[in-house]
Amino acid sequence: MSSGSSFGSLLRLSTFGESHGKALGGIIDGFPPGFEVDTDRLQAFLAKRKPGQSKIVTQRKEDDEVRFLSGIFEGKTTGTPIGFIIENQNQKSKDYSHIKDVSRPSHADETYKQKYGHRDYRGGGRSSARETVARVVAGGLAIQYLETLGIHLNAFVDQVGSLRMPNTWMHETQLQFSEEQIEHSPTRCPDKHLAAEMEQLISETKKQGDTIGGAISCQVIGVPTGLGEPVFEKLHANLGKAMLSINAVKGFEYGAGFEAIGMNGSEHNDAFKEDGSTTSNFSGGIQGGISNGMPIHFRVAFKPVATLLQKTEGLHADGKIVEMQGKGRHDACVVPRAVPIVEAMCALTLLDAYLHFKAYQ
Amino acid sequence: MSSGSSFGSLLRLSTFGESHGKALGGIIDGFPPGFEVDTDRLQAFLAKRKPGQSKIVTQRKEDDEVRFLSGIFEGKTTGTPIGFIIENQNQKSKDYSHIKDVSRPSHADETYKQKYGHRDYRGGGRSSARETVARVVAGGLAIQYLETLGIHLNAFVDQVGSLRMPNTWMHETQLQFSEEQIEHSPTRCPDKHLAAEMEQLISETKKQGDTIGGAISCQVIGVPTGLGEPVFEKLHANLGKAMLSINAVKGFEYGAGFEAIGMNGSEHNDAFKEDGSTTSNFSGGIQGGISNGMPIHFRVAFKPVATLLQKTEGLHADGKIVEMQGKGRHDACVVPRAVPIVEAMCALTLLDAYLHFKAYQ
Amino acid sequence: MSSGSSFGSLLRLSTFGESHGKALGGIIDGFPPGFEVDTDRLQAFLAKRKPGQSKIVTQRKEDDEVRFLSGIFEGKTTGTPIGFIIENQNQKSKDYSHIKDVSRPSHADETYKQKYGHRDYRGGGRSSARETVARVVAGGLAIQYLETLGIHLNAFVDQVGSLRMPNTWMHETQLQFSEEQIEHSPTRCPDKHLAAEMEQLISETKKQGDTIGGAISCQVIGVPTGLGEPVFEKLHANLGKAMLSINAVKGFEYGAGFEAIGMNGSEHNDAFKEDGSTTSNFSGGIQGGISNGMPIHFRVAFKPVATLLQKTEGLHADGKIVEMQGKGRHDACVVPRAVPIVEAMCALTLLDAYLHFKAYQ
Amino acid sequence: MSSGSSFGSLLRLSTFGESHGKALGGIIDGFPPGFEVDTDRLQAFLAKRKPGQSKIVTQRKEDDEVRFLSGIFEGKTTGTPIGFIIENQNQKSKDYSHIKDVSRPSHADETYKQKYGHRDYRGGGRSSARETVARVVAGGLAIQYLETLGIHLNAFVDQVGSLRMPNTWMHETQLQFSEEQIEHSPTRCPDKHLAAEMEQLISETKKQGDTIGGAISCQVIGVPTGLGEPVFEKLHANLGKAMLSINAVKGFEYGAGFEAIGMNGSEHNDAFKEDGSTTSNFSGGIQGGISNGMPIHFRVAFKPVATLLQKTEGLHADGKIVEMQGKGRHDACVVPRAVPIVEAMCALTLLDAYLHFKAYQ
Repeated sequence: MSSGSSFGSLLRLSTFGESHGKALGGIIDGFPPGFEVDTDRLQAFLAKRKPGQSKIVTQRKEDDEVRFLSGIFEGKTTGTPIGFIIENQNQKSKDYSHIKDVSRPSHADETYKQKYGHRDYRGGGRSSARETVARVVAGGLAIQYLETLGIHLNAFVDQVGSLRMPNTWMHETQLQFSEEQIEHSPTRCPDKHLAAEMEQLISETKKQGDTIGGAISCQVIGVPTGLGEPVFEKLHANLGKAMLSINAVKGFEYGAGFEAIGMNGSEHNDAFKEDGSTTSNFSGGIQGGISNGMPIHFRVAFKPVATLLQKTEGLHADGKIVEMQGKGRHDACVVPRAVPIVEAMCALTLLDAYLHFKAYQ
Repeated sequence: MSSGSSFGSLLRLSTFGESHGKALGGIIDGFPPGFEVDTDRLQAFLAKRKPGQSKIVTQRKEDDEVRFLSGIFEGKTTGTPIGFIIENQNQKSKDYSHIKDVSRPSHADETYKQKYGHRDYRGGGRSSARETVARVVAGGLAIQYLETLGIHLNAFVDQVGSLRMPNTWMHETQLQFSEEQIEHSPTRCPDKHLAAEMEQLISETKKQGDTIGGAISCQVIGVPTGLGEPVFEKLHANLGKAMLSINAVKGFEYGAGFEAIGMNGSEHNDAFKEDGSTTSNFSGGIQGGISNGMPIHFRVAFKPVATLLQKTEGLHADGKIVEMQGKGRHDACVVPRAVPIVEAMCALTLLDAYLHFKAYQ
Repeated sequence: MSSGSSFGSLLRLSTFGESHGKALGGIIDGFPPGFEVDTDRLQAFLAKRKPGQSKIVTQRKEDDEVRFLSGIFEGKTTGTPIGFIIENQNQKSKDYSHIKDVSRPSHADETYKQKYGHRDYRGGGRSSARETVARVVAGGLAIQYLETLGIHLNAFVDQVGSLRMPNTWMHETQLQFSEEQIEHSPTRCPDKHLAAEMEQLISETKKQGDTIGGAISCQVIGVPTGLGEPVFEKLHANLGKAMLSINAVKGFEYGAGFEAIGMNGSEHNDAFKEDGSTTSNFSGGIQGGISNGMPIHFRVAFKPVATLLQKTEGLHADGKIVEMQGKGRHDACVVPRAVPIVEAMCALTLLDAYLHFKAYQ
Repeated sequence: MSSGSSFGSLLRLSTFGESHGKALGGIIDGFPPGFEVDTDRLQAFLAKRKPGQSKIVTQRKEDDEVRFLSGIFEGKTTGTPIGFIIENQNQKSKDYSHIKDVSRPSHADETYKQKYGHRDYRGGGRSSARETVARVVAGGLAIQYLETLGIHLNAFVDQVGSLRMPNTWMHETQLQFSEEQIEHSPTRCPDKHLAAEMEQLISETKKQGDTIGGAISCQVIGVPTGLGEPVFEKLHANLGKAMLSINAVKGFEYGAGFEAIGMNGSEHNDAFKEDGSTTSNFSGGIQGGISNGMPIHFRVAFKPVATLLQKTEGLHADGKIVEMQGKGRHDACVVPRAVPIVEAMCALTLLDAYLHFKAYQ
């Protein structure tokens, strides 16, 4: 446990930046050399997490143009650290002056204040989900690299409020949904009918100045057998930590997940085929913490966003409870925009595990 | 991601040992000096995870006597590494000869074989849950130390199969159950009525040679505000990784957890009191990844044990599917014995976070 | 051993940037919050390592203006990562086109090429000492912070070629030389007479298109007893690694150093005074890897710069030895400009050790 | 900087144990699987560091029989952690009772006491060089493995007091001395004539109850190009840290080392041959922190042992200076026995770097 701004070991992302500071950015160390970066595709990936993509997500404008400062030469990675920044275009500090001395409920305002004393109160400072932009840059590069290894992944929204898709991909051997199916709706739910319902639910929730939770599932195919380390560095433990490090995440499960509680072993065990694959995949592609070649799938629970556009009560620095009115442009449901973040963190975890794996081949 | 045998940073546990090797053990580095160890209490804690405690858990005999080899002098910790071993008393290698060339379904046999080539097939070797004995030694010491800081924790079984306790501790400010209440039943479920039902369900499952999943909840009180680091080292992300590193765990949630998906922000937000505490605790004692002084609570899902005492099919090294009959003494439900393991990993995570916290006070 | 761009543990500096890339920079994670940064002083410290300060150092112009992007708010550190960049003002890539396919002797050209395949050949890319600018920014902040703890340090040139100052500070309890004494000469040698001789030697060496080695000593006072960890993280081992990570460094010694080889124990042992201090300081302020409260002093050997302004032979990518003529503006002796780098790395090492120390107080 | 008991990253050694505790030992994590261990050879290697080998080294009897507890199955490594212990046979605690409250000069007694409060005073406890036995076990395995990669190394004494061998191996492409040449004398100096003089010097020093310093050189051949990472993880920086972590080491240099200070670049630069090798090797096999395929060579300075067998003065806990008489069996010169320790730490560093290197091939 360092001070928290680094992720990964052989492939290590370090990040910096606050919601309303001059810039956010990061350093990617240990990225393999000689890889030709598709910057247009990366920029498009980055656009997926930005606000203002549709009427159901916040209309804040974040241009999020990434500027690479090192580690890429003549279009290819050099093996040395990739430094990058995203300048903040939209530093409306004034929007947040009303909360300078007030901690908002279920935000990190009060815990940061207690921990550090001196805090950047503008838009949550470092605790803002704006921080994830640096993860998406690094993860976007990792996704591109993993594809050259035959590893493909995507994430999608499978629940908003009580509207939940049945898990039809549990035992599938291929990616269940194409990017087109996922992107067809601003909800990023690949079930057309449910997506429409979710869209309506989010809109109604927003009208009431309220917010609502959701969940994201992720599938990965093409992972070779052997990724992940025994005991404390199990592959799913690292995936879990990666997901739980994303703002607003409250839970993580893989394979059969919480459903496994109610199952018998005779039902849950995945029977072998002669080629070493399994007929079912309750294991979620990981056995004993190590990938078994079957698709990896996991699911991430997000709480409803804490910032409400209705009256709420905060804690003033003088120890009084004060009424406050949420302002600004906030998401009523965070999961659609969190899809690329889940994909990014998954890719960083897998590429790190892959490099470790390769050290012993 | 090192090779997986170390956990933690300032307080770091490294472990070794296989199910049927000569001994298991570990090194605890960074344990604070001058602490008087209660070895009797530690030994009693260790006894909680051992098999053969009741008719519902496996009758394998493991004496699990820990022998400290360094780092404790005249009864007190010295600040230098605490080395310890637990000799294996019960090395019935013969029991496992029938599976030497066969990988059991949903075990780590095949993934270890693919990863390492050369593997210790006796009782699962390193992948056996026997490995957790070293965690319980280290965690037991951490629990004792945390108590001197006013931090108290306990875990208990809250679900076996579909038998689930309602979460009455979500918003409580004290430990909801005493150790006595938890220990009254071999299930370690503090609800007497439900415990009896669980006991019966496990017995029946066992008779059928089958196994069943379960869940464990953990509560921690007295944690000061400020533990955990932003972004990648959030306190719950480290707790999640710790729990997901335990054998058979399939999911982790904290605070409102997966329930938060279906909630509105107006419902989920924890309103402040003037003293900085909150009237509800859907946050589970952690906001923005940092403890807020409220009780921490989380929940861990365990799959049904993979080893069945009935006919099943394994994968032979020659690529054939072979019938195999589970033998030996195995748990039909792992959660009662996993309670001290959850407590141990929780304590190690918190003490590490506390030491980091202290570096900045 | 990560991929090499991070230094330190609790206080961790990660850096990026190549000699002729767009910018260099870094992230300082774990810097204590609430510290008022003196940016003018930091900028002045940074100026010490830049070229073109005098006729004996290279006339390359590097403005080296640091721009902080995060982690400092209202003039104070927030405890969250301090991101910073230094834009490259002087990207004369053309100067280096003649060496695109040629590896220079005793540079890192060939080893980088062999290691990474794809390399940024402009000015040495990542292997250039230009990389140290990020260290000096971070170290400059650490120096300022250490002073608030009563820890003061400075480094100075004590040898150029065979011109060497006698070690008069071995047993001193105070900093032997003031900043003024060190800065009076462009050589940064505090001995006026010797400094003049060094200056002449460097000038003559330069005229011949040649280069020459040198050494830097560093003294630290006010270090509390107890910094450094036993066995593998001894304080002097970390100082040594820090110094050996600086370009062109070939050796490190502390206390009596290599002189100790020829000494008897009866001579080398530092006798105690009743207050726990010692009458001599051959130990260099560190015993058993842990600071003992006496001044820390160590010495660093630098090889002569590899780039000569005379004809030399390089290895062409086609496997031929080719004649090449060093061009551009290079130092004939690196040690004067390396003084702030030694100070910076020393300060980063000590502040990291101090934070670790504090976790156990 | 963890608490100091772990070394390395992919290959990580963690150790425990005090001079007069029950046992010392360690855990080697990340050792490649499928390697057939030669335990007899390992035991013989271990015997090299033990006392009582000749009349010039201490007559303490340490049997140092290593007992592997895990990670080796059917004679081969499994890839899981190798746990091992060496029981202390010779726990003469009484010998040390006279120093319980007294700190010896230039030992770690006082710094440990100040740092930890509670310390194991028997024979120096954790600060004793007895700790290095665990390093030699792990390093001995690493040496065996490196040989399968074509990497060979050996270390030897090249100086005792002022008796110094000229460096004839600086530019050699092969190991200059055979194990036989090194082992022919108890001094482990391969120069027969000088070895005899050293032996006499050590004996005379011992008679006077005094001690004397020395130096060890190490040569490594067969290292592939590309080991070591840029900037902070340069190969020589890690070798330096490894050496400086050994008890009594005061300095480290590689290649031309401190001699480089007095050299011109035109002299120091190693000219290329067409095959990429160099005609000289002042670089010591490392350029820009990365191995260049030439032999690696470095040198380590050891201070005279602090424990004298003559009257000396210590610091009593009550703040008085007290006379004390060194007792027991101590080395008058540590370097002969330190040879395998240097080799062990070198091998651990190189194998770790090799694994990292392999992750990117």
